[in-house]
Amino acid sequence: MNFCSHCGAPLRLAIPPGENLPRHVCDTCGTIHYENPKLIIGCIAEWDGRILLCRRAIEPRHGWWTLPAGFMENAETTEQAALRETLEEANARVELSALFTLFNVPHINQVHLFFRGHLLDLDYRPGIESLEVALFREEEIPWEQVAFASVRETLRHYFSDRRAGKYRFHIGDIDPTPEQLATFSEQPKPNFVA
Amino acid sequence: MNFCSHCGAPLRLAIPPGENLPRHVCDTCGTIHYENPKLIIGCIAEWDGRILLCRRAIEPRHGWWTLPAGFMENAETTEQAALRETLEEANARVELSALFTLFNVPHINQVHLFFRGHLLDLDYRPGIESLEVALFREEEIPWEQVAFASVRETLRHYFSDRRAGKYRFHIGDIDPTPEQLATFSEQPKPNFVA
Repeated sequence: MNFCSHCGAPLRLAIPPGENLPRHVCDTCGTIHYENPKLIIGCIAEWDGRILLCRRAIEPRHGWWTLPAGFMENAETTEQAALRETLEEANARVELSALFTLFNVPHINQVHLFFRGHLLDLDYRPGIESLEVALFREEEIPWEQVAFASVRETLRHYFSDRRAGKYRFHIGDIDPTPEQLATFSEQPKPNFVA
Repeated sequence: MNFCSHCGAPLRLAIPPGENLPRHVCDTCGTIHYENPKLIIGCIAEWDGRILLCRRAIEPRHGWWTLPAGFMENAETTEQAALRETLEEANARVELSALFTLFNVPHINQVHLFFRGHLLDLDYRPGIESLEVALFREEEIPWEQVAFASVRETLRHYFSDRRAGKYRFHIGDIDPTPEQLATFSEQPKPNFVA
């Protein structure tokens, strides 16, 4: 962040009065530019014991599998974000039941939420960000090709809770792996790596 | 948003290729400026059946009561945000137990999360954003002077669950009241109205 998005003047990093963190501040118009974590919202769409996964057509993790998920947009609810992302990435319609996982991903300033839901029909097909979309039984999940740690942990909790006969809400943290620390960079497109 | 925060050139609203929502785009350096919802994180700090409330020293809702809460910062977890806000606004140390409520507040592009927790000691005192800090029994809550709808709903769920003998996770939406639609404006300081 180099210039003020309000007036176009150069910005400088400074701790505003009454605060304790450095912010990008504009000395010309006085605007303080706050940067805050972003929400990624996704969905476990289940059909007859199988789970809907999408194979990514975009970086990061091109060719790897993920639950449908993406950046929450302004003016929508978390549930609307989950339904929209599932429709966009898999052309799939789901009925949501409950919030299932929350993962803090502080090293990339993100919070990931996944809802549980049921597919309403089998008329799914890849959206433009997916190479293919398919239903997987637990033993068919391509664990070594799951794109993101929050997706992998959400799937693990799901199958574990299903065996236990009771779905609970789970909260946890995702720490960076050495590989992710080495390769992560900001994406011009709203993608996510965790 | 008028100017590109990366290169300083004027921005225009346009739908980027492959997307379906208008974004602020820079024709000079190609940056797309996404705007996404922000997370507000707070805490129900309980001591011997009483709940810690802060009377606000800042707008909006100067003089009204709230649970300690505020904007989540980059590089922290949701739990760290709840602990930090409780320390900043009430100089209070808490041990968190579980995530208790999530409220979508789409008309102001926010998601509010409240954790349950227990005060670790009684050495609380107002931070600079609070006029006073006090513990309230259920029958003492100043319901007519509770600053935000998400705080009021969180307190209602808390007392209701306590009477039922079981705390559950709650999720819901906060719609604007006519008064809020009329008075809300963007704050230079990171405040919230809901």
